[in-house]
Amino acid sequence: MKKVFSSLGVFIFLSNVASAAQAPTTQSNLNLVWLGVASGLVMFMQVGFIALESGFTRAKNSVNVATKGILDFAVGSLIFFMFGFAFMFGKGSFIGTTNFLLSDYITNGDNAGIMFWVFQVMFAGAAATIVSGAVAERIKLTGYVIASAVIAGFIYPIFGHWAWSSDGWLAAMNFHDFAGSTVIHALGGWLAFTGAVVLGPRFGKFKKDGTVNAIPGHNIPLAVLGTFILWFGWYGFNGGSTLTGDGSIAIVFLNTTLGGAAGTVMAMLYSAFRTKLVDLGMTLNGALAGLVAVTAGADALSPGSAIIVGLFAGLFVSLAVPFFDKLKIDDPVGAVSVHGINGVWGTLAVGLFTKEYSFLTQLIGAVSVVTYALITGFILFILIDKIAGLRVSAEDELIGLDKAEHGYSAYPEFQSHYTSDLFK
Amino acid sequence: MKKVFSSLGVFIFLSNVASAAQAPTTQSNLNLVWLGVASGLVMFMQVGFIALESGFTRAKNSVNVATKGILDFAVGSLIFFMFGFAFMFGKGSFIGTTNFLLSDYITNGDNAGIMFWVFQVMFAGAAATIVSGAVAERIKLTGYVIASAVIAGFIYPIFGHWAWSSDGWLAAMNFHDFAGSTVIHALGGWLAFTGAVVLGPRFGKFKKDGTVNAIPGHNIPLAVLGTFILWFGWYGFNGGSTLTGDGSIAIVFLNTTLGGAAGTVMAMLYSAFRTKLVDLGMTLNGALAGLVAVTAGADALSPGSAIIVGLFAGLFVSLAVPFFDKLKIDDPVGAVSVHGINGVWGTLAVGLFTKEYSFLTQLIGAVSVVTYALITGFILFILIDKIAGLRVSAEDELIGLDKAEHGYSAYPEFQSHYTSDLFK
Amino acid sequence: MKKVFSSLGVFIFLSNVASAAQAPTTQSNLNLVWLGVASGLVMFMQVGFIALESGFTRAKNSVNVATKGILDFAVGSLIFFMFGFAFMFGKGSFIGTTNFLLSDYITNGDNAGIMFWVFQVMFAGAAATIVSGAVAERIKLTGYVIASAVIAGFIYPIFGHWAWSSDGWLAAMNFHDFAGSTVIHALGGWLAFTGAVVLGPRFGKFKKDGTVNAIPGHNIPLAVLGTFILWFGWYGFNGGSTLTGDGSIAIVFLNTTLGGAAGTVMAMLYSAFRTKLVDLGMTLNGALAGLVAVTAGADALSPGSAIIVGLFAGLFVSLAVPFFDKLKIDDPVGAVSVHGINGVWGTLAVGLFTKEYSFLTQLIGAVSVVTYALITGFILFILIDKIAGLRVSAEDELIGLDKAEHGYSAYPEFQSHYTSDLFK
Repeated sequence: MKKVFSSLGVFIFLSNVASAAQAPTTQSNLNLVWLGVASGLVMFMQVGFIALESGFTRAKNSVNVATKGILDFAVGSLIFFMFGFAFMFGKGSFIGTTNFLLSDYITNGDNAGIMFWVFQVMFAGAAATIVSGAVAERIKLTGYVIASAVIAGFIYPIFGHWAWSSDGWLAAMNFHDFAGSTVIHALGGWLAFTGAVVLGPRFGKFKKDGTVNAIPGHNIPLAVLGTFILWFGWYGFNGGSTLTGDGSIAIVFLNTTLGGAAGTVMAMLYSAFRTKLVDLGMTLNGALAGLVAVTAGADALSPGSAIIVGLFAGLFVSLAVPFFDKLKIDDPVGAVSVHGINGVWGTLAVGLFTKEYSFLTQLIGAVSVVTYALITGFILFILIDKIAGLRVSAEDELIGLDKAEHGYSAYPEFQSHYTSDLFK
Repeated sequence: MKKVFSSLGVFIFLSNVASAAQAPTTQSNLNLVWLGVASGLVMFMQVGFIALESGFTRAKNSVNVATKGILDFAVGSLIFFMFGFAFMFGKGSFIGTTNFLLSDYITNGDNAGIMFWVFQVMFAGAAATIVSGAVAERIKLTGYVIASAVIAGFIYPIFGHWAWSSDGWLAAMNFHDFAGSTVIHALGGWLAFTGAVVLGPRFGKFKKDGTVNAIPGHNIPLAVLGTFILWFGWYGFNGGSTLTGDGSIAIVFLNTTLGGAAGTVMAMLYSAFRTKLVDLGMTLNGALAGLVAVTAGADALSPGSAIIVGLFAGLFVSLAVPFFDKLKIDDPVGAVSVHGINGVWGTLAVGLFTKEYSFLTQLIGAVSVVTYALITGFILFILIDKIAGLRVSAEDELIGLDKAEHGYSAYPEFQSHYTSDLFK
Repeated sequence: MKKVFSSLGVFIFLSNVASAAQAPTTQSNLNLVWLGVASGLVMFMQVGFIALESGFTRAKNSVNVATKGILDFAVGSLIFFMFGFAFMFGKGSFIGTTNFLLSDYITNGDNAGIMFWVFQVMFAGAAATIVSGAVAERIKLTGYVIASAVIAGFIYPIFGHWAWSSDGWLAAMNFHDFAGSTVIHALGGWLAFTGAVVLGPRFGKFKKDGTVNAIPGHNIPLAVLGTFILWFGWYGFNGGSTLTGDGSIAIVFLNTTLGGAAGTVMAMLYSAFRTKLVDLGMTLNGALAGLVAVTAGADALSPGSAIIVGLFAGLFVSLAVPFFDKLKIDDPVGAVSVHGINGVWGTLAVGLFTKEYSFLTQLIGAVSVVTYALITGFILFILIDKIAGLRVSAEDELIGLDKAEHGYSAYPEFQSHYTSDLFK
């Protein structure tokens, strides 16, 4: 979604808002219904993230993964209702300071505004939950919930205000991030990076001799399902960002499909050329990388450009995963490579592949979001670490967070031989 | 959905019906398309229920859970087409007696009416399937299918007629159950109660010394997926109940989100304060409890009230689950606590938190649904027990229903050590 | 979707296309939004197919199943963008030769045309992926990807051109295949047949004494989830095929629901009468068979006819599965029985149960699609076998394709005892 009040789609949407006291037109109703459907799809992405993360990590942490996922969504929703949305879309130069508790919308019976919140709360949930995968299998639940609450309530809305509200300084520069390569994915991905760095790697991930000890996911079909749920939801994520139910969604659907497909194919080919085997995990990450990268320009890219953007995304994620491994930064699901790297790539690609938007402006936006994420993320996670404790004990990590933090197991009937294997 | 012919949304919907022979307007088409989308979402909830129940029960009964789920939907759909819908929405004071086989709609080419049936059949499926979780792991498949057919064909439509048809006595009192806290969830939940009581607890659930032997679910990620599918589908369940594709869905989406989030957070906090551990199972039930409770007033509650309703729902489900355990009523997934208790709570909350609706009327509705469910449910399950047999043999229960009733296993390649563990 | 340019729905759709340069109406926007939603639902069916196939096959091939599924969709999408769609819907008598790379749509800013492509690419993905189940557990990944690319790029578009484009010879005969019983399911199902025949049965499937060695699926809840995702998506598959967001979708939703329900009930009853046990696998296949069969006439059948069509579909699939077993054709998920047999049945049923369409024409269509699929399929798979190799080595098949072709396991933490069991 482009900065509110400026693009055509948003203009139509907000003119409905303005005339909410008047009789709505059928078109304004259609806009609202489409936004509702899209909101449902984005909400469904929550379990896509959970399934992906759970499948790509160990069975002994599956209850914990799901708990993080449902809590960040629930806590984030309440916070975003109370003040996150006001900070993001309220009036104000640095930060919004109006419309707390949706008071303006509710007073005016502004249904379009209310549905706009519903769509935005799903986005806020996505931004917070991206972090989850990178900090999996070793973060304390309390620390995680605090972090995700701060992200949904402060960190995300403030940057969102700059890029997407009518008062934002990035918006004023004609910075273009259609559906969130920058605001959601790059922000979430680089916050994830800081979490992974502050936590340090999982026990056993890097051997003493410096080599990487791959820790395979315990349930690949679950990760596959998660990836497809995310792709399915992406049509709401990108398609809904037009905020209008009209022909403008067509090119968005086309580019989303092509970007995802190109990322998939490139990551598959890269793994096949490198290892003679097709790496399904990397192929799935290629799909997501393509989707992330095409998101900033899904409305503005030509289909050919969308394919190119997706192909490079598939390549970048394939290079980034081993790169972060080399840096000994342990990101269990590749969240930084998928969302951080390709969020930036998608942001820059808008400047490279369209005439309407300046590469320099896009670069400023990309540098800003990475800088902002690194600063706020390191402060956030270091503070939580000092005050509440961020990482579970080594003992709890080995037992698994499910037993340690929740007292039960995700699959009590199936024998798991993983824990012992780790020490072979 | 409020009683047909009275609320504004339904008036618009039915004026389309009335003018079906005339050219439909774009708005009437939009209403119909939205109802179609919502119907799809509610249909998807069927597998949400199956996944939740399967995940929260033992591997040896997973084939059986899925069989129950697909059969109650399939059998219920055919029955609801033949006569259930006529009983519910046909003309008649105690019970509807017109429009069998949708004859009125089909004769008149009444597309809006036909799509209204599609939406309603998904609701009937939900009402029947709520029972499934409470009777899991010990009910005979034939007994279950008979019960769900009677519920979808008679028990549910008759109460539905009273509350939701223009001729119903509850509807005439201005009783308000927007999307089914009463008609679907309380009814289904208290029918579930009768099934659980008549069947008795699962072998091994209550020890001889009176303590509860927790029987953990075998696949928590599956239950998590089920919960999120239900939440996703709930936007169709509640949102579709406006029957119109317009701004009236905005507050419904908002309240649904807030109610579910508040229920989640409260159940999580309650478990954390009680046990120092976050109980994911209870947290998921808290989410569903919040969604159930907010359903009756999703169109009428203020957002703040929706949060309060959800918070209490999270508390009530947390108290109800151990309460029913104390009564030695074995409800494997907590269906009575989620749907029965919070269906009633949601019904009453409309009277407490809105000015338009009387608490007394809501109380009459709630007492009626519980009384009706207990009477019809006990008669139903006792009759089935006497005539066809309701419970499988002890031997079949120990072997598992998958082997006993279906001849195969849900996970033939994975060793399950549960059965033996039960006797440790 | 009926042959473009002739049916009313398509006429409305294409008149929007024609007037794309003019201001679109709200109704044309509604058509486009509905097509977008339907496209998302059909895309989601991809993982329905994957989950079904993965659940019904062995754990050692789950990574491979998912890889095939995501690759056929990704590769197929790019190919269908480049030329598949042009072959199918471009101008030309035998094959379309215009609108490569969607050039006409993109030049004209024809949003309705672009969204039409999005919907169609999801259909192409479905046609290709039907083959996957029948060739599972023994096909080389390279061979499979080549086959699916040829199907999505050539085999499917050419037949689709004949049946669904305005220039097609079947379309000119008033042949009716509303949403693809013929073009998608029969074609995909009989291509699947050729693949299964050329590959030969899996090691161990047929014993030396001629009896069948059932190879049970490893994860039934996953297969259940897949079936329900397919059913959910079918509302987009059939409902979107009206190409318009109006009352015409109502009867489609009704018939889809009834056809699926009837197929489910019949397959369940048949298995219960034959074996005294309810076979869940066959019941799920009955649901899919009913959905497949009702697809050709979902817009034209009366609801009563839809039930009859579904009942026979449930019977046919129940008879076909053991029939193909007797022929020693190994189809691990029953794809030929579900899609091949019932695609033909659904095609013929339009001629039997409607007055508007001739049985002879429908028979010509059905004979054509089977003949076309058998000829092109055998050529395709035999050529791949000769040139690139179609089947993995016996050793790789026993180890499992996950280890052999991908180097890792789908469930590394759970012990699987299957491989050894096979030789008991």
